[in-house]
Amino acid sequence: MDSTFDHEAPRGQPIARGAALPLLDFTRYAENARAKVEAALEQWLRAKAAETASLTPGARAPIEAAFDLARRGGKRLRAVLVACTYDGFGGEGGGDAVVLAGVAMELLQVYLLIHDDWMDGDELRRGGLSVPAMMRARFSSRELADASAILAGDYAAGLALDALLSVPCAPGRIAKAAQEFARVEKDVVAGQLLDVHASHDAPRSHPPQHAEVESMHALKTASYTVRAPVLIGARLAGASDQACAALEAFAEPLGVAFQLRDDVLGTYGDPKATGKPAWSDLRQGKRTALLAEAVREPGARDLLRAVGDPAAPVAELEALADYLVRSGVRARVEARIDVLLGKARAALETPLVPEAARLVLEGSILALGRRER
Amino acid sequence: MDSTFDHEAPRGQPIARGAALPLLDFTRYAENARAKVEAALEQWLRAKAAETASLTPGARAPIEAAFDLARRGGKRLRAVLVACTYDGFGGEGGGDAVVLAGVAMELLQVYLLIHDDWMDGDELRRGGLSVPAMMRARFSSRELADASAILAGDYAAGLALDALLSVPCAPGRIAKAAQEFARVEKDVVAGQLLDVHASHDAPRSHPPQHAEVESMHALKTASYTVRAPVLIGARLAGASDQACAALEAFAEPLGVAFQLRDDVLGTYGDPKATGKPAWSDLRQGKRTALLAEAVREPGARDLLRAVGDPAAPVAELEALADYLVRSGVRARVEARIDVLLGKARAALETPLVPEAARLVLEGSILALGRRER
Repeated sequence: MDSTFDHEAPRGQPIARGAALPLLDFTRYAENARAKVEAALEQWLRAKAAETASLTPGARAPIEAAFDLARRGGKRLRAVLVACTYDGFGGEGGGDAVVLAGVAMELLQVYLLIHDDWMDGDELRRGGLSVPAMMRARFSSRELADASAILAGDYAAGLALDALLSVPCAPGRIAKAAQEFARVEKDVVAGQLLDVHASHDAPRSHPPQHAEVESMHALKTASYTVRAPVLIGARLAGASDQACAALEAFAEPLGVAFQLRDDVLGTYGDPKATGKPAWSDLRQGKRTALLAEAVREPGARDLLRAVGDPAAPVAELEALADYLVRSGVRARVEARIDVLLGKARAALETPLVPEAARLVLEGSILALGRRER
Repeated sequence: MDSTFDHEAPRGQPIARGAALPLLDFTRYAENARAKVEAALEQWLRAKAAETASLTPGARAPIEAAFDLARRGGKRLRAVLVACTYDGFGGEGGGDAVVLAGVAMELLQVYLLIHDDWMDGDELRRGGLSVPAMMRARFSSRELADASAILAGDYAAGLALDALLSVPCAPGRIAKAAQEFARVEKDVVAGQLLDVHASHDAPRSHPPQHAEVESMHALKTASYTVRAPVLIGARLAGASDQACAALEAFAEPLGVAFQLRDDVLGTYGDPKATGKPAWSDLRQGKRTALLAEAVREPGARDLLRAVGDPAAPVAELEALADYLVRSGVRARVEARIDVLLGKARAALETPLVPEAARLVLEGSILALGRRER
């Protein structure tokens, strides 16, 4: 993988709308790395299919559904972050050498998405049926379909660890990377527990608080979207504990900003670009940053009745979304994203992070925090 | 931990009922190791509780339920196998040094039991409520209770890996041990998939076949009850690939025999000793070796109607159980257990397995294959 980001770029600019950060470099790196990840993932899945070839067709179907979801991945951002951090920290052989760690991140996400979709009752994922919905389409018994979906996720978790441990790298580095893997496995589940338990309270009786939404986002999203990928990439390159601490200070605000952006796109994004059904966040009453801000807006009170109502008329949801723009709610969430992106960028300003890593990770800030899909 | 098994013992005996193998030594070793595992597990759980202290009480409850189930463990056989194999292979510091790998095996089992109990609808486990039943008692919403149970299992899986990676050992050995962990995570899920999909067919329309039942037992039980513990113990002690292959040839038949013994105890064991409700295997129509043998017995046809009927009268189940004894079905399963135990023992007869390891593992053969609970 070429180190396309390894040249001069503007420094020290504040993260303001439209700022010219080296996004192009990250974008170019990401395109290249993404193709490598896709190829390695395909090769890995083909090789691993042999391990379950002797199962009965019914028993194999859930695993094949997990593979199908893995193949339907989008930007492979997490895998790209592993590669570019490893590369930026001078890892031997560049990002290609640790492409299986990227595959591991993709499979970890497959596990998490399957269990989440089962819990949330989400039918659609990545432009197709979710794994739980695939299982219900295949097996007439609901119990069998549910068990199959959970086990598909469980299998993907084992396969993710398998991929990480197959990276050709010094065992001391593998062991450190695996510790990050165990940590993220725990954190993301803790975040999901916070989410499902909080969501169970109706939004108006227990309106979400900013801090609560952001702690949940840190555990549930930032942990596996940014922290684990960059720390695993850094650990595989032999980065020091101090450098990893700096990366952690970069990863958490960026990961939270990524999810806040998701919260905005969940209401204002183009469903064709995001792959999510229109209005699904509001209809499901998801505890988003937008909602945490909206419940503090007295004028929104009546409009908020539509939130959490799966059958809410589109006109009511549109009225709420419009009001949140006019009253500045959306802008306040966007402003918070900018603050978090600034924090992420500031955390990279240390000699502990090599110049090459700093440049490419700065590029990732806009790609993750300002994305439109 | 003292190497209490490190002395002369009879060799080359067939595994016949009542044979005098060095069980006493394994029993003594196991008692000692079990106490160490209990202490280390308690210390680990207390330390790890801090990681989730900031969660809301509802979000923390599922994790606490998993901890509770971990504390209610019985013989800690899997943890004992890690310690005695490490010790037998001359691992530095003896079994104590790798007690956290035993803790990892206990937590892996907690994860598997939670997901299994949810799928099977089992209310009782280890003399108390199963984790899914605890969640239903605590949360009135069935959806929230189910999500909580699944996440409790997911969390335990992450915690198990965390414990394994915390063993103070050379990273090369840790990485090899972790590969066994990833392998067992996949195999046991594949076995559970075989089980839930086969169980979904009524036993009479698709009667279980011996080979099918034993492949399922190999994946679902032998993998995490014997293979992973002994290979992880051996890998942590620096055992060679060849020695590990010999241990694998020992572990699979012993693990399958362990489960066949479970199949017998599920119908003929004392519920007080086994901790399982009386007749639960037959009432649930579990695909046991006993059933695979029974469906080949023409005289059992009418009696088998009670199998898989949750409301079957005790008198009918008793009549079936009696018939299976009189017709020799039970004896044929016991004979198969003896064949498997003989295979396990023969696999240890190689210079690749050090004498100390051979002696203690021979002792484990009777403890696992002839247990009454």
